[in-house]
This record gives sequence, structure tokens and C-alpha cells, in this order.
Amino acid sequence: MQKVQLSVFLPDSFLAETKDLKLKTSKVGIIGRVLAVFNVNKVIIYKDTSEGSFDNINSNRINSNRINSNRHGLSRNTSDKYGLNRTNSHGEFISKLLNYMDTPQYLRKSFFPIESDLKHVGILPPLRTPNHPTGEEFGLGQYRQGLTIKRNKKGTFVDIGIDELAFCKEQLTVNKVFSFKVIKVAKEVIVTPDVPMDRYWGYEAIYTQKTLKNSLKLINPDLVLLTTRYGHEINSIFDDLKSRTIDSKSMALLFGGSYKGISEDVGESIKNLQLDVAEVNTVPNQGTETVRTEEALISTLAILNMMVQ
Amino acid sequence: MQKVQLSVFLPDSFLAETKDLKLKTSKVGIIGRVLAVFNVNKVIIYKDTSEGSFDNINSNRINSNRINSNRHGLSRNTSDKYGLNRTNSHGEFISKLLNYMDTPQYLRKSFFPIESDLKHVGILPPLRTPNHPTGEEFGLGQYRQGLTIKRNKKGTFVDIGIDELAFCKEQLTVNKVFSFKVIKVAKEVIVTPDVPMDRYWGYEAIYTQKTLKNSLKLINPDLVLLTTRYGHEINSIFDDLKSRTIDSKSMALLFGGSYKGISEDVGESIKNLQLDVAEVNTVPNQGTETVRTEEALISTLAILNMMVQ
Repeated sequence: MQKVQLSVFLPDSFLAETKDLKLKTSKVGIIGRVLAVFNVNKVIIYKDTSEGSFDNINSNRINSNRINSNRHGLSRNTSDKYGLNRTNSHGEFISKLLNYMDTPQYLRKSFFPIESDLKHVGILPPLRTPNHPTGEEFGLGQYRQGLTIKRNKKGTFVDIGIDELAFCKEQLTVNKVFSFKVIKVAKEVIVTPDVPMDRYWGYEAIYTQKTLKNSLKLINPDLVLLTTRYGHEINSIFDDLKSRTIDSKSMALLFGGSYKGISEDVGESIKNLQLDVAEVNTVPNQGTETVRTEEALISTLAILNMMVQ
Repeated sequence: MQKVQLSVFLPDSFLAETKDLKLKTSKVGIIGRVLAVFNVNKVIIYKDTSEGSFDNINSNRINSNRINSNRHGLSRNTSDKYGLNRTNSHGEFISKLLNYMDTPQYLRKSFFPIESDLKHVGILPPLRTPNHPTGEEFGLGQYRQGLTIKRNKKGTFVDIGIDELAFCKEQLTVNKVFSFKVIKVAKEVIVTPDVPMDRYWGYEAIYTQKTLKNSLKLINPDLVLLTTRYGHEINSIFDDLKSRTIDSKSMALLFGGSYKGISEDVGESIKNLQLDVAEVNTVPNQGTETVRTEEALISTLAILNMMVQ
């Protein structure tokens, strides 16, 4: 369990050059796995507006797609051609799939209605994080994520993935997922809202529909790691960065679009936010001309994970 | 460019739980990219014989598959059911695809006959390594990989991806890929066998059909990094490992099968080889129950890359 709250920022352009829905799904699957392996708490998908980027070409496509669907409703054709339906945006698709992966198996059907862009969720690798319990483990003191089903004056009924609904003696918003602790197992299973502090409890994925700069304001981190090929080589600032990381309570890791990294403009605008920003190249001496978003993500998280132990 | 010769050992069981040929292809694509990003020189696919592993189940399947194809020839059915044809083994498939990725675009068609297991190579991401030149760059002093086409008494004609065949004044084996330097551009383009030392020049993929221990003997490294969850946490031996890495001329990185890591048995048998072995956990404090081969690979290479700069 990390002490620092870790937020990862990914561009919605991340899937721009992947055409096939199954491959898009598989690519998001890699991201979800890596976020969980490295105990990431939040992943924020931002709108990549950088000029000349693949995503721009793609967002034009998606726009015209959206116009079509406004005019004609969501046709079968729309979904076949672009691999996306309803959500109609890569940002929404990515965050939805990531949240799907993080959601315990027993809540997926109720929480995610069948939609054509979820067609290939069967290929998503399981996270096997502590918030995905197996049935046998159930008992007093266990933590479980649950979906609030209905409410009465005494409290709220919650689906925590057992045969009956559990009961929570608090008024909670219905149809939302919360974390609970099992405090009584008798005729009725009683739970109370609680999150375990001693283990990794999954991540939350959000599509902000905002630029990187404006998305960053939603988190307000005390340390920002901006990954770019033109930053300091990680080896040259390792010790300095290590001490800043250890002092940090909320850290943001920023990744740019495929093939580009974060553009200078974006870097400048972030610097204006007056945050503690470190520009780092976590893949010095790369053998390839470019490093992809997912490659940079895993590499950076692996190094950071080693740093914070 | 790294000074140390870097060899990566991956189990042929790596694709065992992926059923779909397109997804298998995409998964190999990730591996190929990562090898190139981190300047890996050799990737050795070994036979994963560990008990109870997915690969074992899978190799049984492949065996019965092979019997079928011996009896009936390679039926369409065989390829549909297992996603593999001709090669009939994941090890051969992985190494073939990795070599395909490493081969410059202009040699792929001549060097890789159309086979059903190459059906999805179109989705493989380009490596964009220095051994994949773009046409415009051609000129005197350039290094190029070339396929030897035919030979006469004066030398060998070579396809280096330009309009005409280049000529090399040496007797070379025909139908093999070698590296050349362009030493004359006149009526004829003259090349000489040469490998640039100042840039990354791609990797070589080999399927040994041998166990990890016996595959390791083929390389004879002076330092072996055995990645396992039960090894020393990377942060606790970073400085020690760094100095051993810097002293090393040929380093081997060993990865086990999905979900398992390298079994204790294999670890023991490797220790009997009397090599300098470091057992390392490069993903300490993992948030998920297991770390997959590809996740361990990228994480380890990212940390090692930082170490050797």
C-alpha cells in the first residue's frame, strides 16, 4: 500500500490509432492491469487537444459520428464502423472499461448495462485485486464493495455479492457503488460504509472532458511528474525525485498522446498552475523513435514503485 | 546504446491463455515493441515445462493438434481451432512474429512467406528502430539490412530495399539477412558487411525448444537476473545490482510463465550452472495477486534501463 495518493493522467487520444473494438478493449485491459499492479488510486482521462495529433484526426471523426447519431439515432452502422456506440467518445469508452475492470465480478451485470461497446469485455484480464473477493472468503470483518439497491427509513439494502441483500443502517444514495465492512452476520448481514486502509482497494477512472490543465485542477496534487522525452533523464534526478515523492501526499503522473509525449504548450500551461512539477524522461536512450503511451506508463510506474518502497 | 549484451528469456507458455489469433498477435506486438524500446539484443523463447502450468495444458493440446495435422495434413480446421498453423507451437509462433517485427519492411515479403498464422501481422506496431530506414535517407555510408539473393564468382547480390540489387564483393550464403554498409553509390550500389556500433540495431528472436536451463547454456551470460516474486525487492539491492550490471558484458533476464514466475525447481537447477545469479522482485508490493509475464518484462526492463545509464 502506497502512502502517496497516485493519480495517472492519460489522453483520450490513446486509442486513436487502434481501429478494431477487440484490440481497443485489449489495450484498455493492459492499462487497467498496470494501474492495479502499481496501486494507482485514480486515472483521469483528459481531452487531448494538441494540434496535429492522431487524436485530433480522430476526434473529428467522432464528431461527425456524433452528428450522424443525433440525426439518425444510434444505427448499427455507427457501431460497426467506429467500434464505439452510445459513449461515442474514446474518453468515455476508456473510463467505462477501466471502471468495469475495477468493479467486482458480482456487480458488473447490474452496474453495466449491455452495450455494444462492451461486446469484448470477456477478453479483459482479471485484476485480482483485494476489492475482488472470491466467494469462499465471506465472513465477519470482511470488506466488500456493494451496490445500493433500495432504501427505507431504517437504512439501505446493498448487493455485496452474497445470496441475500445486506443491510446498512445509513441513508445512502441508491444505485451507487460504495465500500462496506461486514459488522454482523446473523439472520441479516449488516454492513457499514468503510474502506480498508491496509490494502490496495482498486482505482477510480474518470473522463473529465477537459484539457490536461483543467483536469489537473480537479485533483490539486502537491507533486506533478510530467513525462516527456525532453525532460531530465530519470537516472540524473533519481535521488532528488525520490525525496520529493516521499514527501508528497498526492502525486500526479502526466502522459501525453501516442507518438508525441506532452507538447511544449501543455507543459508551459501546466507550469503556470504553480505546482511542483518535475519533467522527467523515464525511458532514457530509447531504442525506438517513439515511446507509446502505454509503454511510458508501465515504465514510469515501475520506476516510481521502486522509488516509494 | 547499451554496453552490456542484453538477452531476455521468455517462456513459450506466455500466450497459453490467449485463445484468439489476433490477440495473440497483438500480445507479441507489445513484447516486440518493448524489446526494441529498451535496446534488447536477443530474445530467447524457451520451453516452459513447469508442472501445472497453463502451458502444459496447452502443449498437450498442441501435441494432439500436431498428430492430427500429420495424419490429415494441415486442415483449415486446425488453424481455426487453435489460431496456429504450420508452426504448430507457440514458441515458433512467438519467435517468428518477433523476427517479423524486427525485419525491415522491404524484406518482409521475401523473407516471410504468407502463412495463416501471419494473418494479423497488419496490426503489429512498427518498431521504428534505426535498422528500419525510411526510403529518403538512402545514401553513401548508410547501414542497411539486406537479403542475399544470388551469388556469382565476384560476389553476392543483395536486396537492401532500393530499386536495384546492391552488390557485395564477398561470397555470402544466399537467402539470409545480413547487415551492410553502403560504400559506393554509382552505376552500381556497392555494400560491405558491417554493423553500426553507435546505435541500436534491433534484436534477434530464437525459439530453442529447450528448457530454460538448457537455453541459458546457449548464451553463457556473466550475470543472470532471475525475476520472481520471492526474490529480493529491487529497491533493497539496487546499488549492488547496479554495480554488477555495469561490470557485466552479457546479461540474461529470466521470466517465468504467466501467473507463476519461475518455479523453485527451475531456480535451483539454474543455480547449479554456477553463474552469477540475482533473484529479484522488480514489482515489490504488487496491488494484484499476480503479475503477468509482459508486465514483469516491461517493469524490469524500465528499471534496468535506468540503472545502466
